Amino acid sequence: MIHFESDYLEGACPEILERLVETNMDKTEGYGEDPYCESARDKIRKACKCSDAEIHFLVGGTQTNMTVIKALLKTYEGVMDAPTGHISQHEAGAIEFTGHKVFPLPSEDGKISAAEVKKFMDDFLKDGNRDHMVRPGMVYISHPTELGTLYTKKELTDLSNVCREYGIPLFMDGARLGYGLMATDTDVTLPDIAELCDIFYIGGTKVGALFGEAVVIPKPGLIENFFPMIKQMGASLAKGRILGVQFDTLFTDDLYMKISGHAIHMADKLEQGLRDKGCRFFLETPTNQKFIIMDNKKLEELGKSVVYEYVQAYDDNNTVIRFCTSWATEEKDIDLLLDLM
Amino acid sequence: MIHFESDYLEGACPEILERLVETNMDKTEGYGEDPYCESARDKIRKACKCSDAEIHFLVGGTQTNMTVIKALLKTYEGVMDAPTGHISQHEAGAIEFTGHKVFPLPSEDGKISAAEVKKFMDDFLKDGNRDHMVRPGMVYISHPTELGTLYTKKELTDLSNVCREYGIPLFMDGARLGYGLMATDTDVTLPDIAELCDIFYIGGTKVGALFGEAVVIPKPGLIENFFPMIKQMGASLAKGRILGVQFDTLFTDDLYMKISGHAIHMADKLEQGLRDKGCRFFLETPTNQKFIIMDNKKLEELGKSVVYEYVQAYDDNNTVIRFCTSWATEEKDIDLLLDLM
Amino acid sequence: MIHFESDYLEGACPEILERLVETNMDKTEGYGEDPYCESARDKIRKACKCSDAEIHFLVGGTQTNMTVIKALLKTYEGVMDAPTGHISQHEAGAIEFTGHKVFPLPSEDGKISAAEVKKFMDDFLKDGNRDHMVRPGMVYISHPTELGTLYTKKELTDLSNVCREYGIPLFMDGARLGYGLMATDTDVTLPDIAELCDIFYIGGTKVGALFGEAVVIPKPGLIENFFPMIKQMGASLAKGRILGVQFDTLFTDDLYMKISGHAIHMADKLEQGLRDKGCRFFLETPTNQKFIIMDNKKLEELGKSVVYEYVQAYDDNNTVIRFCTSWATEEKDIDLLLDLM
Amino acid sequence: MIHFESDYLEGACPEILERLVETNMDKTEGYGEDPYCESARDKIRKACKCSDAEIHFLVGGTQTNMTVIKALLKTYEGVMDAPTGHISQHEAGAIEFTGHKVFPLPSEDGKISAAEVKKFMDDFLKDGNRDHMVRPGMVYISHPTELGTLYTKKELTDLSNVCREYGIPLFMDGARLGYGLMATDTDVTLPDIAELCDIFYIGGTKVGALFGEAVVIPKPGLIENFFPMIKQMGASLAKGRILGVQFDTLFTDDLYMKISGHAIHMADKLEQGLRDKGCRFFLETPTNQKFIIMDNKKLEELGKSVVYEYVQAYDDNNTVIRFCTSWATEEKDIDLLLDLM
Repeated sequence: MIHFESDYLEGACPEILERLVETNMDKTEGYGEDPYCESARDKIRKACKCSDAEIHFLVGGTQTNMTVIKALLKTYEGVMDAPTGHISQHEAGAIEFTGHKVFPLPSEDGKISAAEVKKFMDDFLKDGNRDHMVRPGMVYISHPTELGTLYTKKELTDLSNVCREYGIPLFMDGARLGYGLMATDTDVTLPDIAELCDIFYIGGTKVGALFGEAVVIPKPGLIENFFPMIKQMGASLAKGRILGVQFDTLFTDDLYMKISGHAIHMADKLEQGLRDKGCRFFLETPTNQKFIIMDNKKLEELGKSVVYEYVQAYDDNNTVIRFCTSWATEEKDIDLLLDLM
Repeated sequence: MIHFESDYLEGACPEILERLVETNMDKTEGYGEDPYCESARDKIRKACKCSDAEIHFLVGGTQTNMTVIKALLKTYEGVMDAPTGHISQHEAGAIEFTGHKVFPLPSEDGKISAAEVKKFMDDFLKDGNRDHMVRPGMVYISHPTELGTLYTKKELTDLSNVCREYGIPLFMDGARLGYGLMATDTDVTLPDIAELCDIFYIGGTKVGALFGEAVVIPKPGLIENFFPMIKQMGASLAKGRILGVQFDTLFTDDLYMKISGHAIHMADKLEQGLRDKGCRFFLETPTNQKFIIMDNKKLEELGKSVVYEYVQAYDDNNTVIRFCTSWATEEKDIDLLLDLM
Repeated sequence: MIHFESDYLEGACPEILERLVETNMDKTEGYGEDPYCESARDKIRKACKCSDAEIHFLVGGTQTNMTVIKALLKTYEGVMDAPTGHISQHEAGAIEFTGHKVFPLPSEDGKISAAEVKKFMDDFLKDGNRDHMVRPGMVYISHPTELGTLYTKKELTDLSNVCREYGIPLFMDGARLGYGLMATDTDVTLPDIAELCDIFYIGGTKVGALFGEAVVIPKPGLIENFFPMIKQMGASLAKGRILGVQFDTLFTDDLYMKISGHAIHMADKLEQGLRDKGCRFFLETPTNQKFIIMDNKKLEELGKSVVYEYVQAYDDNNTVIRFCTSWATEEKDIDLLLDLM
Repeated sequence: MIHFESDYLEGACPEILERLVETNMDKTEGYGEDPYCESARDKIRKACKCSDAEIHFLVGGTQTNMTVIKALLKTYEGVMDAPTGHISQHEAGAIEFTGHKVFPLPSEDGKISAAEVKKFMDDFLKDGNRDHMVRPGMVYISHPTELGTLYTKKELTDLSNVCREYGIPLFMDGARLGYGLMATDTDVTLPDIAELCDIFYIGGTKVGALFGEAVVIPKPGLIENFFPMIKQMGASLAKGRILGVQFDTLFTDDLYMKISGHAIHMADKLEQGLRDKGCRFFLETPTNQKFIIMDNKKLEELGKSVVYEYVQAYDDNNTVIRFCTSWATEEKDIDLLLDLM
């Protein structure tokens, strides 16, 4: 069997394991106060061109989303996102568990627009009953989105502007950020994100690390006393250095970008190959997730050799499936998959 | 000025105040353990034809909704409702504060259908990622709905059946229940509701009481240790007898039905009068809320003499407004309003 | 049977009922925006000598405590109180339900001291692990306390100073405030409280109203957007005027003080009578609650004619019980009780 | 500098790193559904002599405590523990964040007794106000405790019996479980724990793993739908195999016991050496934590060469400090420390 069902099938890129082995018997302080975390923070700040940024390392995506959102919202506020947003769909109610409503704004492609945010805010602000309603207090986006799409710099700038106009923070879930930054035609860079977002994270779990998400607050002070909040959510890692070592490695010699670029290269090759074979795409995506429409009979056959992700029924005879590449995808598996299609 | 903006403009129906005065200096236990509450419970049980029902008196609607929903759901479950449901719109995030997601199901008229509940449950149950999703754990409906519409007995039976098929409770918000029960053509009775719903409440605040909602659990045992939960939510009234006296009065000599019937009579007269004058209705409603479409210029004029509730813009030149009648509406005000239209 | 078990046995003082009857058919806005609430606020401001105070009316004590505490604390903070504090004992976990820890400070008499608060803050601030601990973020006191004791002006000033030194708010639960203000030898006035506390409430439920607590914020701005928070907690009363009318009446012609004074007069008479009969007091209390130690056999006899509150076993042969007077206590019942002892 | 301040100073025992490297490029399912987790579960079941046990792998201790406690308690219940319990002290309010009260029972040595649990339950059950109080719904203990002490089998059996008598679960935090199981004179084995506790966890973070805690439910069915709860708390690791590989390694060839035994051997040597030098012990502890009383001047000197953990002031001239050994402690460092004392 060859595997294309997700981008977290393997462990970590070998450079990370090597570094974990090398540093293993060093004795360090816990909870992110060690020199590896410090070094990783410096390198991330440089990559973001943001020398003051406050950086925290958390373990996983849902945990990071719930911790950041709870920290940013007042108790009576909610968060706007896309209907397909991770927080709306696949976090088992983690945001609601922290006491907050998620507002899905209209969206077809996993992105939300400045115009929709503006409309939602205006509708709220002019509603005579607004004191009986949940106040929209922040915007959550993913880049790439759960549908593999990307914001343009223009779209991101517009979102940022509208958020600043209304005084609400813009939070970017970057669980797959590397695959967005290295997409062939994107015009959005890491420094752009650091300029336009109030808080975002650089995903490790899906981009070469064993686990870990690096939360970046470009302008420190956005969240007061963030560490006790992280601790209260059970989201601080005792041996924080494990996160430090991983991100320090990922941000040494551009490793994060290199391995993300590999995934994109594999994804582009896969897409071209699929197009050459006449495959129908459900959605145009410039990143490491490809969504295609398959005839059910062919799909049954394919399933004997390939593990894919089922997305949804397309119609009675066809199904939408997803193939993912990652930092770990081998070119021979792409060739094999294309042969099988 | 004449007032039609809501159904909670006045205090209580005079019978209630008289009874409060009469019983004022009696000394009773607190927290619903007094003889007035006991008597009210008996009368409600009789009205529901449900001799075992467990009955709790709470103060207000939002409080009741959040307390019941929290008590019924497991921590990882959510509640289905209509997009216009009170819990989705005008409770300032009370449900999310208790840790639960609200799922708005498709609906045009404030009601949700058995078919939509079934579809939502089936989609959830067959989703391979369901363990990463909020589990739909109950259905919340209002009768009348926030849009003044009513379920038929057939619709309610279908909803009840689908809920029982999936093992989830059906909860009816009856904040305006009297106005639903006394609607001219309804085929739904209080005993029907007690048979078809797992829990519901009989609204006092909008139907003749100073305040108060009577939660009815037709089959006791649905919620274990409900009182400590009510207390933990700050929802128990120390002098519970004030609630007991009110509901005891409302369920003596059919008062609840009589005063509700008056509101319907006034609403029917208002509707007929408006139709005679060629008014356009935004929505057909058999209860005490009438939604009409008004030309903006005429509306400005009307606003000098009448307080109405703004609902939404209809188009550039027209607006949807709501008139409410209640147990306290005087026929002369209806005549005056019709004259002004 | 004569009743001395609590101070919420009856309805409301007759002036309140009269006023509810008089104003019953007035049509007003909901949720505290009516003229009765406005008038009550003005009178309370005058009584507090605090012309800018922000005032909100809530229904009950537990509800008020949880709403105020949640509104004041950051999510990772806790509240200091006495071990006998209402929030520690008899609110069924309402504070914890809002996500916050209660820290009981050492106390023998229901009061906490500035010194204990200072010690607790200092211990926290110098603890190297403080980022792994709940941060003490406010002080909750009751005046009178649950044990019927009172702070002196000096004690209250010290508490206020220590709170301001550490930048944490001081919150007074005044569920029985009238009985404290009218205690014979107290030197604490309502304006003192408004000066020394950051937020407090004037209890209605136990002092002459059907229900209701008036939250006073002497310096507005302490809590931003308090109304949506109140609504989110299910703590706003639709017909807010019912609260307005009650507090407006209580603060007309000094009624609140007069009826409180009556309770104190009755309590003083009871205490003197009990002392004359050689009763042992468990605790010295200048307010409307008297705690005495009774021989178990005599108590059994007494229980045939008097309803009292059981407090705790004193030793194998004696029991601590409580008698309460209130605005509604009749002198003949005091005489009867003294005869029975 | 030599380090004795904690037991999580290094990475993981080398066997774990080797195995992570070996298995790194295997492709597996996420969220604990992989063969490494399955294999680890089997080995743990064998070690516990509990063939049906349900086993979940979580990342850290606070996270595990809050997830298990929330899953076990009804919304209106609280958890009993010792005043020094981790959940009472160093989890930044994580338990309260989930809505639950922590009840510290009297304890001098970090342990709680069956007698105290019984007394607390009885006091609650006979309290006339119990419906206004938080219901004690489970017992949390640590073994070893935060003070390094251990339960005897008799004590644990008594606790278990009292919990079963009252129908409440007994939960053991085993963050340092290995160091308890390998203590020289303990009579408590892993199968004993599996028999006497309703749920417990085997700590990895402090006992040889990079991170990870293995939650064992000896009788499956205690918690229904535990995975969605774990996910909702942000506590599930996407690449769950990293946890599986670690615990599989720890439970292969008795590694967990061997490395724990090493820590105990080092701790016993340290204790004997300290006794030989006339050190005063603050507390007798048979595990890997040693608490001693040091003269402040000598401590200042010692601090130049040794990192220790400050515990508390003992008196004006002396301080209580803690030394920890672990799986990673080198004998030469013990010798060095003893030389320095």
